[in-house]
Amino acid sequence: MPRLFRLPPSRVKGIMSNPKSDQKKMEAVVSLCRRRAFIFQSSEIYGGLNGCWDYGPLGVELKRNIKEAWWRDNVTSREDIVGVDCSILMNPKVWEASGHTTSFSDPMIDCTQCRGRFRADHIIGNQCPTCGTKDKFTEVRQFNLMFKTYVGALEDGSSQTYLRPETCQGIFANFSNIVSTSRVKVPFGIAQIGKAFRNEINPRNFTFRSREFEQMEMEFFVKPDAAEAAKWYEYWKKERYNWYLKYGIQPSRLHLREHEDNELAHYAEGCADIEYDFPFGRAELEGIANRGDYDLRRHSEFSKKDQSYFDPESQTKYVPYVIEPSAGADRATLAFLVDAYEEEGERTVLRFDPRIAPIKAAILPLVNKDGMPEIAEKLYRELRKKWNVYYDDKGAVGRRYRRQDEAGTPFCFTIDGDSASQQSVTVRERDSMAQQRIALSEVGNFLSKALDS
Amino acid sequence: MPRLFRLPPSRVKGIMSNPKSDQKKMEAVVSLCRRRAFIFQSSEIYGGLNGCWDYGPLGVELKRNIKEAWWRDNVTSREDIVGVDCSILMNPKVWEASGHTTSFSDPMIDCTQCRGRFRADHIIGNQCPTCGTKDKFTEVRQFNLMFKTYVGALEDGSSQTYLRPETCQGIFANFSNIVSTSRVKVPFGIAQIGKAFRNEINPRNFTFRSREFEQMEMEFFVKPDAAEAAKWYEYWKKERYNWYLKYGIQPSRLHLREHEDNELAHYAEGCADIEYDFPFGRAELEGIANRGDYDLRRHSEFSKKDQSYFDPESQTKYVPYVIEPSAGADRATLAFLVDAYEEEGERTVLRFDPRIAPIKAAILPLVNKDGMPEIAEKLYRELRKKWNVYYDDKGAVGRRYRRQDEAGTPFCFTIDGDSASQQSVTVRERDSMAQQRIALSEVGNFLSKALDS
Repeated sequence: MPRLFRLPPSRVKGIMSNPKSDQKKMEAVVSLCRRRAFIFQSSEIYGGLNGCWDYGPLGVELKRNIKEAWWRDNVTSREDIVGVDCSILMNPKVWEASGHTTSFSDPMIDCTQCRGRFRADHIIGNQCPTCGTKDKFTEVRQFNLMFKTYVGALEDGSSQTYLRPETCQGIFANFSNIVSTSRVKVPFGIAQIGKAFRNEINPRNFTFRSREFEQMEMEFFVKPDAAEAAKWYEYWKKERYNWYLKYGIQPSRLHLREHEDNELAHYAEGCADIEYDFPFGRAELEGIANRGDYDLRRHSEFSKKDQSYFDPESQTKYVPYVIEPSAGADRATLAFLVDAYEEEGERTVLRFDPRIAPIKAAILPLVNKDGMPEIAEKLYRELRKKWNVYYDDKGAVGRRYRRQDEAGTPFCFTIDGDSASQQSVTVRERDSMAQQRIALSEVGNFLSKALDS
Repeated sequence: MPRLFRLPPSRVKGIMSNPKSDQKKMEAVVSLCRRRAFIFQSSEIYGGLNGCWDYGPLGVELKRNIKEAWWRDNVTSREDIVGVDCSILMNPKVWEASGHTTSFSDPMIDCTQCRGRFRADHIIGNQCPTCGTKDKFTEVRQFNLMFKTYVGALEDGSSQTYLRPETCQGIFANFSNIVSTSRVKVPFGIAQIGKAFRNEINPRNFTFRSREFEQMEMEFFVKPDAAEAAKWYEYWKKERYNWYLKYGIQPSRLHLREHEDNELAHYAEGCADIEYDFPFGRAELEGIANRGDYDLRRHSEFSKKDQSYFDPESQTKYVPYVIEPSAGADRATLAFLVDAYEEEGERTVLRFDPRIAPIKAAILPLVNKDGMPEIAEKLYRELRKKWNVYYDDKGAVGRRYRRQDEAGTPFCFTIDGDSASQQSVTVRERDSMAQQRIALSEVGNFLSKALDS
């Protein structure tokens, strides 16, 4: 996501003006995430670290399923896209070429009275938000949002580098390597999932704006022709918008918003955001940008290595244009969580698409006797080989259903008094709560079908 | 891998004394990795960054398959282990508790003549390896191997933290969260795959000792009883050793080595390494440690939050003991690459187990006419939905086989002149090079069976 100039805070709309019900929903989701081990504060026992989050046992499976779906849909099932996995620490010249060293910054000021530091554009009435003093600020200075560190035994300018603020530069830096080794042909894409870091002054909205986050990015290289680039830009906007719908996001809450001209970077031909109506406001899940040849040209210039591509069809050399769909894996995870969340009478339910649900099914012996546990355990062990399933024999079956609803488990298989004689179980479906009876031997097929992509 | 005192360099045996043939093999593997897009130097067009590596299109699929196999075998297919995914940046108190802030260091000295900096234990004859001056070194000082950075708007002690040097502390810091939210019962494990960083003074041996690397770690919590811990320690040594064999590592090259008493950390009851005979010497792939209650006790002490566990069976509270199998994902990837590598007459072949092979099958129309491309493309599109498969119609079929051998692709399906009339293809198996004819409609089943875990 190499957008050189960051979005002003007003781009997350409605944070201050939400109806109370939305705040309540957000609080409920955050509470459920903590209670059911989706998401914890990082290093919580030490008071946490602002802007960093840990995924617990349910959260890690949810996020893995989302990333796996993205990889399958955008890499392995496609003929025209290959993957990479690049390092977080890179040669610092990469960030000179990308422009981050000079331009990836927020305007900051210090209060000379209390020495507090603030974003200049967040100060209202020239008054210090900490000590209340007026008109006692330093000049505005630019604060670079990259985390810096030192590589090697010395701590000086020569060894200073950064935690990558975006994954895509690893893709651009490997463009010529991949062209020369991987038989790719324009149009083609290079995709990557990986962590990135931004020293946000004000991390906020749970995992939405965090300092450590994971991106799912792709650079799709096309002929350097405006019409061709525009065609693929339209293609990827549609494709990526539909991807969220495919895994269950409600269409009424998902928006594709074309940027205004004054939002565009100087080199960009077009940029659109896929936005989701979070309880804290409408905010960006993914950006799709038509970036021309800006990035590869910058790397040609700074590395002094030609980044052009020889087209065997047209027998010409050119620097391709690039369309970039850049998504946040944590933001997608949060959107799927919020979107799936519902309070329905007495129960709380996460209506995840079965393919992204952390637990695929629960196996419940109605009571712990009359041979039911034996059948249930056998079924559980069988299913466990292939899927993340859960065994629960504690308490009333109604309460066990509620517990699975809250985890987003799409199916419960209950072994009851007839299971032994009939060799059958009941399937209880999470959303409709409808129950049907199926043969024990059919349970695997039932799940396979429900989880088929 | 919270081993407080790092291994001396002599633990990678035989680096200096290898027979020439091994060096040749290592060079051949590194060259193949570059040529076939398994592994590139990070930021190569800018001269790289020492100790950092990028996985290209084939490498990323290989490494993903290895990590996926580990996760499946150690998390989702098991009843007693849950996963987490914790942040790389953590509250710095974590590293005080773990001991890294004070003890995770190498002894360094500077040459006062040329100002070069070296590991004290690498200097021979008190002579500077750079300028040759003798006896002109500073005192030895400890150089901490954690990468440091600053979180927030200020750069001072209060904002300083580190890139995690190991993933396991995220597990320990979340122990009480997981116990209270996830219905786990001792004995149980918490597993994690993720990046870690160590500012190694001398990264070396390709991806084996790098500054940025990925770990596959698990903490398995057991009753605080020496016999119980010893039992699980034995269990995990065997389990983890066999895991590498399961995915094809040759037993003659894999060793389980119990540590000598003088190698053990003061609190450890036992520690064993799984070692592999790399071309550069025998070196550690994974460590399995019987760590007692050291880690949780330290976190209780430093966080002032009780890390004990209430056992519902015995109705007692205790701090569990822990067995830790800690593997390197990059080291495993390198071992699988090296182990699979073979030069056999005219061909170079990577004999990957089909389950970890980056490409599962190639689909090859014998010639580009007589309806063969149509059948081949249809088959390719069908298989592509489920597996990473490759289509190749360029050049003689023998050369195409060689190309797949070098990528480690286990099967080639060739569509020939009889395919249309007989609705069949030939399967050519990579290792034996044997060919057999199977029905077109059976290709999916054939692959499913070969890739079944």
